[in-house]
Amino acid sequence: MFLSVGEGVEGIKEGDHVLTIFNGECGECTYCKSKTTNLCAKFRVDPFQSVMRNDGKTRFLTQDGKPIYHFLNTSTFSEYTVMDSACVVKINPEAPLNTMTLLSCCLSTGIGSIINTAKIHQGSTVAVFGLGAVGLAVILGAKRRGASKIIGIDINDDKRIKGETFGMTNFINPRDQTLVHEKIRDMTEGGVDFSFECAGNLDVLREAFLSTHDGWGLTVVLGIHPTPRMLPLHPMELFDGRTITGSVFGGFKGKTQLPLFVDRFMNMEGLKLEEFITHELPFNKIDQAFELLLHGKSLRCLIHL
Amino acid sequence: MFLSVGEGVEGIKEGDHVLTIFNGECGECTYCKSKTTNLCAKFRVDPFQSVMRNDGKTRFLTQDGKPIYHFLNTSTFSEYTVMDSACVVKINPEAPLNTMTLLSCCLSTGIGSIINTAKIHQGSTVAVFGLGAVGLAVILGAKRRGASKIIGIDINDDKRIKGETFGMTNFINPRDQTLVHEKIRDMTEGGVDFSFECAGNLDVLREAFLSTHDGWGLTVVLGIHPTPRMLPLHPMELFDGRTITGSVFGGFKGKTQLPLFVDRFMNMEGLKLEEFITHELPFNKIDQAFELLLHGKSLRCLIHL
Ligand SMILES: NC(=O)c1ccc[n+]([C@@H]2O[C@H](COP(=O)([O-])OP(=O)(O)OC[C@H]3O[C@@H](n4cnc5c(N)ncnc54)[C@H](O)[C@@H]3O)[C@@H](O)[C@H]2O)c1
Ligand SMILES: NC(=O)c1ccc[n+]([C@@H]2O[C@H](COP(=O)([O-])OP(=O)(O)OC[C@H]3O[C@@H](n4cnc5c(N)ncnc54)[C@H](O)[C@@H]3O)[C@@H](O)[C@H]2O)c1
Ligand SMILES: [Zn+2]
Ligand SMILES: [Zn+2]
Repeated sequence: MFLSVGEGVEGIKEGDHVLTIFNGECGECTYCKSKTTNLCAKFRVDPFQSVMRNDGKTRFLTQDGKPIYHFLNTSTFSEYTVMDSACVVKINPEAPLNTMTLLSCCLSTGIGSIINTAKIHQGSTVAVFGLGAVGLAVILGAKRRGASKIIGIDINDDKRIKGETFGMTNFINPRDQTLVHEKIRDMTEGGVDFSFECAGNLDVLREAFLSTHDGWGLTVVLGIHPTPRMLPLHPMELFDGRTITGSVFGGFKGKTQLPLFVDRFMNMEGLKLEEFITHELPFNKIDQAFELLLHGKSLRCLIHL
Repeated sequence: MFLSVGEGVEGIKEGDHVLTIFNGECGECTYCKSKTTNLCAKFRVDPFQSVMRNDGKTRFLTQDGKPIYHFLNTSTFSEYTVMDSACVVKINPEAPLNTMTLLSCCLSTGIGSIINTAKIHQGSTVAVFGLGAVGLAVILGAKRRGASKIIGIDINDDKRIKGETFGMTNFINPRDQTLVHEKIRDMTEGGVDFSFECAGNLDVLREAFLSTHDGWGLTVVLGIHPTPRMLPLHPMELFDGRTITGSVFGGFKGKTQLPLFVDRFMNMEGLKLEEFITHELPFNKIDQAFELLLHGKSLRCLIHL
């Protein structure tokens, strides 16, 4: 990836290989200085209407006289973009960009939710609801961490093969099964240790919550829920010893942690990252790429100019 | 406390000093054997309709031909009771029973939520919603663990003095303040590290959740919520990096952990446990004791036969 570097920006120069991240890291705010979070005060605004922080303006053209805002601070669905340097991560120039770009979102989110948020341990049992690129990255992470059982759940039967590629041990299609959480409890002597919601659906979230073992189960919400509905959980259900939390960008501090991660990935055998990239299309067919994704036909599509 | 011991019961004999616990510990089930929970399979049933486990019967008289069930496995609001030995904890005979009985519920619940559930650290900031005996025990625990700020919240101004006795540093009456969480965020540069809901009210629970710092705040629900209403939280609010969990009996495994706790308490200076006992009444005035509690006039009332 080629870039030009604005005045006053340090640590990046033209020609560097970089990843773009929606979850910026300014490095200077209370959040960035805290070890416990990867949020950043600079980017705690509406991610769908964000602007450049130093002058409060957008860097895109206007449409009907109205500004075009940044989308998730990166706006990578355009030929060119202008980004805050807090969202640009310099990585090893020898890393293959085609697969490393997965670290800009799904791969970091999924693997990070395993190692940073859930902190699963050797022998843990895991259920992953929704096997898109995010859910599959959760499976990959769980497998690497030594999970003893990894149950994948998806309404699309085609996801079974990909799930198995990354380490899934069991597959459930909710359409064959009314109460998924009961099935999972049966399969695991009372429930999994960790469940991950990667479908962006509140009914799925409830199933994910109930599929963990009472007493110690943790549910991590990864899916985005654009709904006015509140959490479908009763307060007393928390007394069954289950916990719920969310994970954004897998808890990674992008600028400081991803470069090390890229280096580790380069030396790792059998990761099969190329399995995430199911299609390649030119930029002028980007709508077709979305269609494939929406219909569950693709995982990630590589777009070239 | 005097007792007679049933056939086959080991480890307790007549005349031992014991605590009664609603959250039994059989010592043999999957839960009891797991380090991560204090639930017990033997007592995972309706606590308001529980029976003796070995024969499925109650030990009380009937009323209008219907069995009188155990209340919370202990039924200590009666002159005599029959309990499962998993709910009877033998303690140091030199420990003062008048105050140690607080470990049967409020004291263990409050202190345990600090050390077992939240695991707060030196310098943590804490908000405690509802300053009954449970909330005050949370304050006591937070103080002992070195919390730097302990904010108490109660609609009853009389609770301020007791709160300060146990280590509360700031008091808020929600009646003087529409948005308690905003006030708390102002007082703590963005929110407390930990909040505890000890009022049993869902609107309070929401305030407690929002009063923690985004990025790392943990809310522990202690209050019992006898309402059909679901959790008043939106799934996307979990993406602000806040976590919510519940705590039953402070996470203590009663039979194995409380005896050690009793010993530690006996050698601790300045605990002021007697401050929890605001009244003493004979058993035939137990209704009056409930009236005092309901109207926020008492914390705990010692009842004698
Ligand atoms: N938390 C974060 O930081 C973060 C980052 C990236 C993406 N996300 C979110 O994660 C979610 C997953 O992203 P993705 O790219 O993998 O999406 P995707 O659309 O490729 O995958 C979603 C999968 O869920 C399955 N699904 C849909 N309804 C289901 C149901 N009722 N039961 C079981 N499975 C069901 C679909 O068949 C599909 O395989 C999205 O909501 C996305 O917005 C969150
Ligand atoms: N989780 C457990 O294991 C466990 C154990 C014991 C008790 N409990 C529960 O903990 C809760 C507290 O128990 P307690 O004995 O301290 O009760 P309590 O009634 O003595 O105290 C409740 C306090 O909350 C205050 N309060 C009421 N409404 C409020 C509001 N809107 N805002 C702020 N404060 C408000 C009251 O003034 C009172 O001081 C109860 O719900 C009880 O059932 C749970
Ligand atoms: Zn920052
Ligand atoms: Zn048990």
